[in-house]
Amino acid sequence: MAITSHDVARLAGVSQPTVSRALRDDSRVSAATREKVRRAAEALQYVPSEAGRTLSTRSTRRIGVIVTDLTNPFYPHVVAPLHDELRGLGYRMMLLTERSDEAVAGETLLDQSLDGVVLATATTDSRLPAQLDRRGMPYVFLNRDTGAPGEYASVVDNEGGGRQVAELLTGLGHRRVAGVFGSANTTTGREREQGFRLGLADAGTALPESRVVRGPFEYATGYGALPRLLGAAEPPTAVFCGNDVVAIGVLNAALAAGLRVPGDLTVIGFDDLPMAAWEAFRLTTVRHDLDELSRQAARLLVRRITGEADPAGERLVLPTELVPRATHAGPA
Amino acid sequence: MAITSHDVARLAGVSQPTVSRALRDDSRVSAATREKVRRAAEALQYVPSEAGRTLSTRSTRRIGVIVTDLTNPFYPHVVAPLHDELRGLGYRMMLLTERSDEAVAGETLLDQSLDGVVLATATTDSRLPAQLDRRGMPYVFLNRDTGAPGEYASVVDNEGGGRQVAELLTGLGHRRVAGVFGSANTTTGREREQGFRLGLADAGTALPESRVVRGPFEYATGYGALPRLLGAAEPPTAVFCGNDVVAIGVLNAALAAGLRVPGDLTVIGFDDLPMAAWEAFRLTTVRHDLDELSRQAARLLVRRITGEADPAGERLVLPTELVPRATHAGPA
Repeated sequence: MAITSHDVARLAGVSQPTVSRALRDDSRVSAATREKVRRAAEALQYVPSEAGRTLSTRSTRRIGVIVTDLTNPFYPHVVAPLHDELRGLGYRMMLLTERSDEAVAGETLLDQSLDGVVLATATTDSRLPAQLDRRGMPYVFLNRDTGAPGEYASVVDNEGGGRQVAELLTGLGHRRVAGVFGSANTTTGREREQGFRLGLADAGTALPESRVVRGPFEYATGYGALPRLLGAAEPPTAVFCGNDVVAIGVLNAALAAGLRVPGDLTVIGFDDLPMAAWEAFRLTTVRHDLDELSRQAARLLVRRITGEADPAGERLVLPTELVPRATHAGPA
Repeated sequence: MAITSHDVARLAGVSQPTVSRALRDDSRVSAATREKVRRAAEALQYVPSEAGRTLSTRSTRRIGVIVTDLTNPFYPHVVAPLHDELRGLGYRMMLLTERSDEAVAGETLLDQSLDGVVLATATTDSRLPAQLDRRGMPYVFLNRDTGAPGEYASVVDNEGGGRQVAELLTGLGHRRVAGVFGSANTTTGREREQGFRLGLADAGTALPESRVVRGPFEYATGYGALPRLLGAAEPPTAVFCGNDVVAIGVLNAALAAGLRVPGDLTVIGFDDLPMAAWEAFRLTTVRHDLDELSRQAARLLVRRITGEADPAGERLVLPTELVPRATHAGPA
């Protein structure tokens, strides 16, 4: 049985509420009593219960990060910077991993155990943001948002990045281009596709649906897409992928098919994960500041919790930059 | 201000403790009253507080998974199976990410907010297990343990796997072999090295310290190790790596150095992550059942919590199997 504040109260010869107040340095308790309680707590190796403290103060200095896409290789990259930035601001972090938004909505911690949450894998059709609003739980979107007005989000200029890729490819002379985009219910999927299409349109280049694949931001999406694209009537000479992991799937499928990259096929990614720079890939991709994306989300959430954020919402957008490596060239 | 059980009590015309009991289906409350309370709770959109429930029942049906190695690319692979197995057993999971064991020890959730914890990145010199024992918090080790008697752990036959690699390499005729092992304060690092050394000794093959590198289980460890090994007086013809991520670092360094694999160098990994099978690598490695490793840890922890585990400790060891792909051959 764990030591409770009642045990500490007995040893210190005070009431249980006095123990709670003394341990949070409440000025209603005299310095002498606070010292006596602290000594008793130490002697018993008593650690105050999160639950008890929560009921008494309604603030937990605890942030939840919600991930519903458990195997997405992107999210490990956000955990360390989120953790460190929140720590610096005086908050602890926990990751809540669920298979669906419905499961998250049933998450009892969302009530009095968390001061706020980061939504790391939001979809545009999610009902979770509205549920959080109803419950009065502050939240911010990280990387993916919903595009709704009034939201709080730390995101990337996905449309601008997509446009940069279109300009690169059309500038190299590619006319038969393809896209392996993310899911249509994510803003990262939609906006990168939209920017790419706008950039192609500016150069008078079409993107027929026969050269478009959409799917989860996973290796298998890219690996499975390439054979389909190559089987089309007019196969592409260049493929823009929704993220680096998808692009690496395409690169491996190209290897398996005996295609030379970039001689036979140009492949472009998005994100510039460390993996993109590996010698085996040297992937040309779109970089943004992944660390800052997370840190900015942490600061925005804390501003929302403390009432310092703009009541009209804040959408903080990081710029993108093309990183030319070894997977692009003109069409053969 | 959030709706509380007191608000529900007022609306339903019952006492607050009756609300709590009714909402956990306590049989001391009549069915009619339970229904009345439920309707009042619905009308107010009241969700019971985790904190309140914790204080009243002392069981949270909540498991913490502790990770102190935030960027280790191994742990994303264990999150999904752990989550699903725990869910099936009626528990929710959260991930607690910290930079050190000391930070974990200060984690207030370890007191009354969790029923048990999974230690996913334990080191042999950690004081955390002893602290958890003192606090009466049930825990299990996942993948890495401490090797102490009486512990509860779900692990892999690392020594057997290391031995299988030694047998493969010596059988192919390699005499100048190298090892890029994990940190000496992890059992995965130690045992894989130990098995490899025992297997080499059986074949009369030496492993001098000039052909040994040790470091974190990361890409950079392998990438940085190869130039050092190649610079030795008698450079190796084969390298056994502590895990697949390290091996992929070695493969990329070999590419950068213009070495052919396996013509000039044999490279072997450990774990058989999905990445090992990618066309760009086709890594020969040691497979174990990564999903079952996590699921077994989940079941063992729940048995410990419910008092069904062996009081003398349980160390559950999964077997390994060599997966021959395209990165091994005889010495040139």
